[in-house]
Amino acid sequence: MLQSNLVDVMVLTVEAAATLAFAVSGMLEAARKRLDPVGVCVVAGLAAFGGGTLRDILLDRRPFFWVAHATWLWVLLVACIGAMAWLKVRHVVLTHRAMQWPDALGLGLFSASGTQLAMLQGMPAIVAVLMGVITAVFGGVLRDIVCNEIPSAFADHKPYAVCAFVGGWALLGLQYLHVPDGLALLLAAAVTFGLRLWAMQTNFHLPGWDTGH
Amino acid sequence: MLQSNLVDVMVLTVEAAATLAFAVSGMLEAARKRLDPVGVCVVAGLAAFGGGTLRDILLDRRPFFWVAHATWLWVLLVACIGAMAWLKVRHVVLTHRAMQWPDALGLGLFSASGTQLAMLQGMPAIVAVLMGVITAVFGGVLRDIVCNEIPSAFADHKPYAVCAFVGGWALLGLQYLHVPDGLALLLAAAVTFGLRLWAMQTNFHLPGWDTGH
Amino acid sequence: MLQSNLVDVMVLTVEAAATLAFAVSGMLEAARKRLDPVGVCVVAGLAAFGGGTLRDILLDRRPFFWVAHATWLWVLLVACIGAMAWLKVRHVVLTHRAMQWPDALGLGLFSASGTQLAMLQGMPAIVAVLMGVITAVFGGVLRDIVCNEIPSAFADHKPYAVCAFVGGWALLGLQYLHVPDGLALLLAAAVTFGLRLWAMQTNFHLPGWDTGH
Repeated sequence: MLQSNLVDVMVLTVEAAATLAFAVSGMLEAARKRLDPVGVCVVAGLAAFGGGTLRDILLDRRPFFWVAHATWLWVLLVACIGAMAWLKVRHVVLTHRAMQWPDALGLGLFSASGTQLAMLQGMPAIVAVLMGVITAVFGGVLRDIVCNEIPSAFADHKPYAVCAFVGGWALLGLQYLHVPDGLALLLAAAVTFGLRLWAMQTNFHLPGWDTGH
Repeated sequence: MLQSNLVDVMVLTVEAAATLAFAVSGMLEAARKRLDPVGVCVVAGLAAFGGGTLRDILLDRRPFFWVAHATWLWVLLVACIGAMAWLKVRHVVLTHRAMQWPDALGLGLFSASGTQLAMLQGMPAIVAVLMGVITAVFGGVLRDIVCNEIPSAFADHKPYAVCAFVGGWALLGLQYLHVPDGLALLLAAAVTFGLRLWAMQTNFHLPGWDTGH
Repeated sequence: MLQSNLVDVMVLTVEAAATLAFAVSGMLEAARKRLDPVGVCVVAGLAAFGGGTLRDILLDRRPFFWVAHATWLWVLLVACIGAMAWLKVRHVVLTHRAMQWPDALGLGLFSASGTQLAMLQGMPAIVAVLMGVITAVFGGVLRDIVCNEIPSAFADHKPYAVCAFVGGWALLGLQYLHVPDGLALLLAAAVTFGLRLWAMQTNFHLPGWDTGH
């Protein structure tokens, strides 16, 4: 009982940190592209909630996270406006490096929880893993599409979606071994998180492909 | 009774004018990007119906407007082909200025009706207002994405979505005060419309944001 | 009985060939844009399954093709990785010309089957034809949007969606004449296929449109 509560609190804390990290990634890209405040809020919202929303549309699940917990929309709105006001006064440079940690946490947690959700709906294994990847990665993809960029998840040759993919399979393996749900979620998230950090540390690059066109 | 009929006719007239204005905005951008006739029709259709369709997907509502009223698809198709043929013969320059009025009418009406629809489905207030903004604004967003541009609603620093956002809250305020539905719709649409026109007249600009990147 | 089986086998064979052709079109564009292997797989998947998935979202149909037949996801994944490995070793140039045939087959078959599906759901004629076009064309549209290009289906001035549009109406005409379903499907697909090949042979161009902007 106590342990399950502890897992819940941990998951909630990581989720909040990761959602904010995703939102900040949207704000930064919007600022780089010189969007106006509306664009900053929309792109931050897409980055934070876009992946889970697309997953829910594909799985035909309702209500969306941001409908069931509409308070998060207020948090996002206030955070965006606050950040814009604050950054106008103080010149803070939010480096990509500072965001790697929460972003990798989100990658791990959202892919594991997305995979778990899809399994509960009786999806085939490969589809469930794919739903996990979509949950974790497609917020950033929508962010980049709206900002008129090729999605960095598909083009920067650093393992990102691949880590979520491996973590999804880890979750299915742990479920197969009858590991309790909460623990399996955390372990699978840790696999993705660890892989992502390791890839960043070693500057691992996915092989390129040149067709000579 | 008579009054309610009058409101219905007014709403229908404004809706038709606004849908056409949105379609024309799609045609103009498609022409600027030198799309072929298929592209012109598709982008016009996205601009006209894309926002409402996305709202209905998010709210899980069926049938879509253009399925229940499929005649509108014919109107759009004939209008696009007619306009292309006509503009080949006569050199008419449809200025942005000429389209400001019907576009602002559409912004007002569609955001108010989108908010109202979402409230009827029991959405939280902030979600309902967001649905109104999506209804009014995301047709243009999809138009710009297909045309490979950063959506002007997020980047031109002129209040557009913001006006729809305020109008949505106005609608909720009027509903709270038990103003009859038809009247509340028109008043909220007028708030958005008035704000938008005022912003255009005064050349009001949303503050920029520079992170130094 | 035998005849119906023969039709089924033919349809299945053409579908497989066409899905692979669409996937290859995605791989080639991803390679041209120097995406990483993740991007290659995602864009290939979007090109292959994106049109049918969007149609199913619009028609509110579940499960998607790639959920009901999840094996296809494995086929796609293995094919993409295999192709990338193979093309690294041997320098094969997959010309657009070599892909015209299976692509035109897919255009014909997917537009006819998409139209048929929508008719079964009781859609109005124009909506059903539009759903056929979306099934056949929007995989390529999503592919181009993710690759940050204006969709070629809307901009290359060669008849593509138009052929699918005509084929959709041919299907409705054949159904009206009480032609059996399987035969009507093949004939309508043949109309689209023939039109597309004829347009390629004669280098037919859709008229341009210049607004002087």
